Amino acid sequence: MGKLVIVGTVAFDAIETPFGKTDKILGGAGTFIGLAASNFNIDSSVVSVVGGDFPQEYLDLLSDRNIDVSGIEIVKDGKTFFWSGKYHNDMNSRDTLATELNVLEHFNPVVPENYRDAEVVMLGNLHPSTQMSVLNQMSKKPKLVVLDTMNFWMDCALEELHETIKHIDVITINDEEARQLTGEYSLVVAARKIHEMGPKYVVIKKGEHGALLFHDDNVFYAPALPLEEVFDPTGAGDTFAGGFTGYLAKTNDFSFENMKKAVIHGSALASFCVEKFGTERMVNLEAGEVQKRLRQFQQLTQFDIELT
Amino acid sequence: MGKLVIVGTVAFDAIETPFGKTDKILGGAGTFIGLAASNFNIDSSVVSVVGGDFPQEYLDLLSDRNIDVSGIEIVKDGKTFFWSGKYHNDMNSRDTLATELNVLEHFNPVVPENYRDAEVVMLGNLHPSTQMSVLNQMSKKPKLVVLDTMNFWMDCALEELHETIKHIDVITINDEEARQLTGEYSLVVAARKIHEMGPKYVVIKKGEHGALLFHDDNVFYAPALPLEEVFDPTGAGDTFAGGFTGYLAKTNDFSFENMKKAVIHGSALASFCVEKFGTERMVNLEAGEVQKRLRQFQQLTQFDIELT
Repeated sequence: MGKLVIVGTVAFDAIETPFGKTDKILGGAGTFIGLAASNFNIDSSVVSVVGGDFPQEYLDLLSDRNIDVSGIEIVKDGKTFFWSGKYHNDMNSRDTLATELNVLEHFNPVVPENYRDAEVVMLGNLHPSTQMSVLNQMSKKPKLVVLDTMNFWMDCALEELHETIKHIDVITINDEEARQLTGEYSLVVAARKIHEMGPKYVVIKKGEHGALLFHDDNVFYAPALPLEEVFDPTGAGDTFAGGFTGYLAKTNDFSFENMKKAVIHGSALASFCVEKFGTERMVNLEAGEVQKRLRQFQQLTQFDIELT
Repeated sequence: MGKLVIVGTVAFDAIETPFGKTDKILGGAGTFIGLAASNFNIDSSVVSVVGGDFPQEYLDLLSDRNIDVSGIEIVKDGKTFFWSGKYHNDMNSRDTLATELNVLEHFNPVVPENYRDAEVVMLGNLHPSTQMSVLNQMSKKPKLVVLDTMNFWMDCALEELHETIKHIDVITINDEEARQLTGEYSLVVAARKIHEMGPKYVVIKKGEHGALLFHDDNVFYAPALPLEEVFDPTGAGDTFAGGFTGYLAKTNDFSFENMKKAVIHGSALASFCVEKFGTERMVNLEAGEVQKRLRQFQQLTQFDIELT
């Protein structure tokens, strides 16, 4: 079993969907990644920053799941990062209503001493230079570095993004972002171009259409579970990343075959995330439910064809 | 092994894509369905109508593949149905440039005598009353009736469509059409509503995002093979339907487990169809290529997770 370092936002979200709206609730990429990874009972540490307004109970909620929070800096006189968004009726697109960086503006992540030899590093969506600074703190080369990013950094920090992704093993990116980063419409061609930028493995997230894992000439496809209702998509991509890295840290096997399984675990956890607002579904998730859902993924995708 | 009756257009297409354009070439739903189904070496019959301008070599091309063409009426002084379309750069949407119904306008399909006891009937996209008239000619109840339709009939023949789909077993429909037919955005809910309209099985085609097969509470998902280039999507949906019904006619097993395999066979054949203009790829397809592609589908989707 390996240790997992996660860097990412720990934040307040206010979300509006066709099903309702929330006040400020617990959110942030680091939170969703950490909660998802905690399903594998591994040693993980979330590196982040919050303000003096961040409730202790939220930190306790993470600690209770064996997530090390000593790397979450508390800026007493600062305010926690706040994001607010409103989803459209199709739940596939959203408007950002507010982004208040607050303490995130001067965030200098510090990896706790006892996590600098972690086998797996998950770089949640942040400025690529911030992501790089985490890598630079590792005392030995991690076995696996996974990076998530978004179009915002392609627009305003493309050079830094190109530099950082030279040093990672896996990138997780959505389909439109893969197209933006490469100028290629075909995801197969886009994945190959991203591969040439550094990452040996490319995960392209397609939301309700699932996720593709590329490695050299190999491709693996995991669907999203068809759901009656997507209640709130916030955090689904981060939950996928947390499940993916959590499974790999636990199994300590970074072969393509095992990454397939990691993708399925990530997809299964993400399918819970969207069932309720914010982290609500993830904090109440039980192991038996996860097993049941994995079985649903098997039934959804497995077939038996005799080949000659 | 069962016999397969196919009703659908046999037509001329003129296609424009970002990769080039064609003159009038062989097209039509019946053609694509027939060619796909012919890969299973079954007895199949295409029921259709063409004009005196339709080349004998195209009919020979079908006959050479053991497709009975005695149900393709030739109206000597009529012109063959003609469709022309232009695909947009993303290949997911297209403009229809011309639709000349010609002999199709007064098409009265006549199922050949020796196919009226066929086990499987594939009703290609046509006016729902025309589809129904084929069903009415069957001398015994087919084991499986599959119907393909499109938004056009929902707009202008909804009542007839509702009547016809009461009498079928499987409907194939694309995602937007499923939403239009039911007024439901969630495909899970849409499939359930369509199920209540008659079909026990609902196949929702999502183009580059694959296809979903619904039956009661069971769902199966087949991805589309990620391709470097989609050259021409024309006929992909019909090729899927031809592979699906051809496989089921050959195996004569209409269980959900076997339908999963049929969906995979249909998806594999459709992945060839889009590689060249029109029917070009399908008429030159060899059995070994199909086996290799089925293996790619296995690698694309199969994983091995131990569940507790």
